[in-house]
Amino acid sequence: MSRGRGRLPKLTPVAPRAALRLLDRDARVPDAPDDDKLKKRTSDQVERIADLQRTFYADGRFALLIVLQGRDASGKDGTIRKIFSGANPQGVQVTSFKTPSDEELLHDFLWRVHQHAPPRGMFGIFNRSHYEDVLVTRVNGFVPKTVWEPRFRHINDFEMMLAANGVRILKFFLHISRAEQKERLEKRLSNPEKNWKFNPADLDARASWNAYTAAYRDAIRRCSTRWAPWYVVPADDKKVRDYLIARTIADTLDSLELAWPKADPGVIARGID
Amino acid sequence: MSRGRGRLPKLTPVAPRAALRLLDRDARVPDAPDDDKLKKRTSDQVERIADLQRTFYADGRFALLIVLQGRDASGKDGTIRKIFSGANPQGVQVTSFKTPSDEELLHDFLWRVHQHAPPRGMFGIFNRSHYEDVLVTRVNGFVPKTVWEPRFRHINDFEMMLAANGVRILKFFLHISRAEQKERLEKRLSNPEKNWKFNPADLDARASWNAYTAAYRDAIRRCSTRWAPWYVVPADDKKVRDYLIARTIADTLDSLELAWPKADPGVIARGID
Repeated sequence: MSRGRGRLPKLTPVAPRAALRLLDRDARVPDAPDDDKLKKRTSDQVERIADLQRTFYADGRFALLIVLQGRDASGKDGTIRKIFSGANPQGVQVTSFKTPSDEELLHDFLWRVHQHAPPRGMFGIFNRSHYEDVLVTRVNGFVPKTVWEPRFRHINDFEMMLAANGVRILKFFLHISRAEQKERLEKRLSNPEKNWKFNPADLDARASWNAYTAAYRDAIRRCSTRWAPWYVVPADDKKVRDYLIARTIADTLDSLELAWPKADPGVIARGID
Repeated sequence: MSRGRGRLPKLTPVAPRAALRLLDRDARVPDAPDDDKLKKRTSDQVERIADLQRTFYADGRFALLIVLQGRDASGKDGTIRKIFSGANPQGVQVTSFKTPSDEELLHDFLWRVHQHAPPRGMFGIFNRSHYEDVLVTRVNGFVPKTVWEPRFRHINDFEMMLAANGVRILKFFLHISRAEQKERLEKRLSNPEKNWKFNPADLDARASWNAYTAAYRDAIRRCSTRWAPWYVVPADDKKVRDYLIARTIADTLDSLELAWPKADPGVIARGID
């Protein structure tokens, strides 16, 4: 893929079962446009999304499901704030999946997730998701391989069923390097507006860096499908990350050929007293 | 209350059990500031809300519940869009209560509402609410007075329990005049971006204008409490409406004396490798 000076190629879906490596050096794009240009371009895409949201809601044929996964400090919260502030909150539902509750653990792993699938007309954003059940669960050995391995298939089947019912699914892995994570965690520790939410468990995950890399790799290559593609987003540079994701979302919405429904002619004929 | 040229008094809560009249002429404020001034002032308040939202989330002691009620075309959707676009969608959950489902009807009237009470740290916005059960339900005679009349008490008790658990509740009645509604419904009918959602039932409610006025009046005066005040918002002018509501919300958040939690000192001491 050739790159001109300061040009950013669009994100492309990970090919199903691709030979995938998640190398630190790929967390950054070479020769990215400068910050001001990127900010401007991102805000154009954000505006496009907010515009398309109106017709998306009215059209009513589709739901949009955006799955965000990534290591701690990879920018999941920031991505949501940057791309969806400006959207009409009435059409957006964000779900953050935390450690499952006792009740949730009594159910299959897709049970709690299914409840938050977005209805038609809405954008649903998953901050973490059912993928945690092949990531944190696997790395920590909470369940044996005979349990987590079949989940790739269960996930693909589940997502296919959603897609067949009008849910457009986009999955983004925010790919950051080990060095970038260190810098961000250190900043978080020294900032009183951020250090209160610092969780020592974040550091345990960092200690298992390579095990997580393997788990992310398998999840992405096994579950990138035609109906629910995974995108690996170079996320060491926040402005690059925001632009690439916003653009992918806007292009996807655009491709749906959304239309305003027709009014009932009887309704139009009726006057108002 | 004296008003200078172009000044807008703050909204004040309806006094509990006040003698309340909802007259068409009160849907408009005399001598409002001009549009440009109002727009600027509203955007200042919207920014204040977005700012305070960050500390509100971090502080974690409170939830905010905003209830929007009003006749068709009174501007519930528009208010949400104007005031909460710009907020971080991860901290906002909007619930639109529609006609109850068969399952919901098998439960008490607060059952479906309770499930959407906002958790601490979040803004919950109700587009319609449990108040429909003393409004549309009453006007249409779906239940007898012996059923809907005790609901005022049930609502007050329920809201008191929420308030005792950290939920700050603000309830806004968007008060529009009959003439203004006519104008808006006519506009809606002639606009292809809006007429598809036109519901002939909107006209039935208009035919029962006075019965609804009585129902709103009782709901507001019987359920405006110290812990969950009702505000009557003059809403014929959208810019006045947005400003007054945004200001009330921002002032309420401000009054909570929100603070960043302290980090665990052990966490701060720990380095990152």
